[in-house]
Amino acid sequence: MEIEIAQSYGFCFGVKRAIKIAEEHPGSSTLGPLIHNNMEIERLKRDFNVSLATNLDDIGAGQATVIRTHGIPKNDLKKLKEKGGEVIDATCPFVTKPQQIVEKMSEEGYDIVIFGDANHPEIKGVMSYATGPVYAVLNVEELKTISLKERVAVVAQTTRKIEEYNKIINYLVPHHKEVRVFNTICNATFENQDAARELARRADVMIVIGGKQSSNTKQLHTICREYCPDSYHIESKDELKKEWFEGKKLCGVTAGASTPEWIIEEIIGKIREFKV
Amino acid sequence: MEIEIAQSYGFCFGVKRAIKIAEEHPGSSTLGPLIHNNMEIERLKRDFNVSLATNLDDIGAGQATVIRTHGIPKNDLKKLKEKGGEVIDATCPFVTKPQQIVEKMSEEGYDIVIFGDANHPEIKGVMSYATGPVYAVLNVEELKTISLKERVAVVAQTTRKIEEYNKIINYLVPHHKEVRVFNTICNATFENQDAARELARRADVMIVIGGKQSSNTKQLHTICREYCPDSYHIESKDELKKEWFEGKKLCGVTAGASTPEWIIEEIIGKIREFKV
Repeated sequence: MEIEIAQSYGFCFGVKRAIKIAEEHPGSSTLGPLIHNNMEIERLKRDFNVSLATNLDDIGAGQATVIRTHGIPKNDLKKLKEKGGEVIDATCPFVTKPQQIVEKMSEEGYDIVIFGDANHPEIKGVMSYATGPVYAVLNVEELKTISLKERVAVVAQTTRKIEEYNKIINYLVPHHKEVRVFNTICNATFENQDAARELARRADVMIVIGGKQSSNTKQLHTICREYCPDSYHIESKDELKKEWFEGKKLCGVTAGASTPEWIIEEIIGKIREFKV
Repeated sequence: MEIEIAQSYGFCFGVKRAIKIAEEHPGSSTLGPLIHNNMEIERLKRDFNVSLATNLDDIGAGQATVIRTHGIPKNDLKKLKEKGGEVIDATCPFVTKPQQIVEKMSEEGYDIVIFGDANHPEIKGVMSYATGPVYAVLNVEELKTISLKERVAVVAQTTRKIEEYNKIINYLVPHHKEVRVFNTICNATFENQDAARELARRADVMIVIGGKQSSNTKQLHTICREYCPDSYHIESKDELKKEWFEGKKLCGVTAGASTPEWIIEEIIGKIREFKV
């Protein structure tokens, strides 16, 4: 039986990159949890001595520090650098981009609107790069309370839905001479879904890996089952059953956004051991 | 009785300006009809000897020429200047603006999308200012047939509806890194309606001037009647009746977009003669 992994699965590009950066800097601290997966944070501590600092005050002088995928506010970055330790930037490039856009557009005199949650670390970081007026809004109602200049630049939190972003833009266009829209939405979740669908169409059996409570993994399982009735949602290799694979030609594998690579590899190893 | 004219009525700013420019240049030719109103074009010929040239070949060497509100293509402007006569630009500033935007955005490397009719003189003119890829589309279906770069700048024909413009933008945003939207729509028609509504709320009697077949005048009349039951839609002073004004304190006046100022003035003069 052939085993094929979906073209896009599990951790997004930015998270994979951040973990690799952390592994390459043993003994460093991360400022805030590197990703939202405790098993993975424990593994980084155990295998690479990468520890967790919950805030800036926990970082000692000279301590090498990894900035997590969400990024941090500009001023925090300055303070961190002043501590004298190496600063290793694992900010997702899809987050660095809106930071750069906000900085540039602000300098060019645009008022900045960010479609996102002002309390989310990503948005706190992005907002901090504005040198002029900047507003984070979650919907048109919030937007209506704000007075903006004629020229407005707009960015979105990377995880927002494009349809909701368009509503923000639809409100801005009639009220402003120029609305400069930057599409900063990252389609990682949708890419995993598209890739799972494509693979499930061809596979005899699909293994969908991720927490039983993980909503994006359940969503992947639903999609796979639609195209491949023999689709199984599992958390660990212990749930695998040899009979699932008997008489099958192609086993497809995908994983939810919070599933580390090593769990996926363990499961694929176990499937191979069945020698079907 | 007091007579008050709506804050915005009749010819838009650009048309009024073009007529004034033509009147200031007796003996000149206009390249194409200055506005879509034959009575007015006849008046300009009779009173100011402003004649009509239907195309570039009709313009003699050294002939002073007025460019009409729609503007003309860049290359036609060049040819016109080569004829050696004075070139008087009556292009509406709301049309000059998208011409300038298209030229600048094109130079900055953006692909240009124009929401408008490629066969309309205004859009022919605006398109001609692009130095790179430029496309005029009337709907999303047309847009889907076009392959565009990552950075797109968008302008709209001045007379388009903003809701339709937003549909174009909503399609572009998910497909491009940057969509630079310029709101080049002119709200003259809507401004006339808003001003008529505001005046009708306060007036005892409303006079709405314009062709009986003119859809925008009929629309104005409908709006006025809603707020002022004694609203009359007339074409000329001969239709006025003294009894309409007896016992009234405030007479409001508005006019459709194709109604020249002098017809409005004739009518106001006649109302004043009633001495009510």
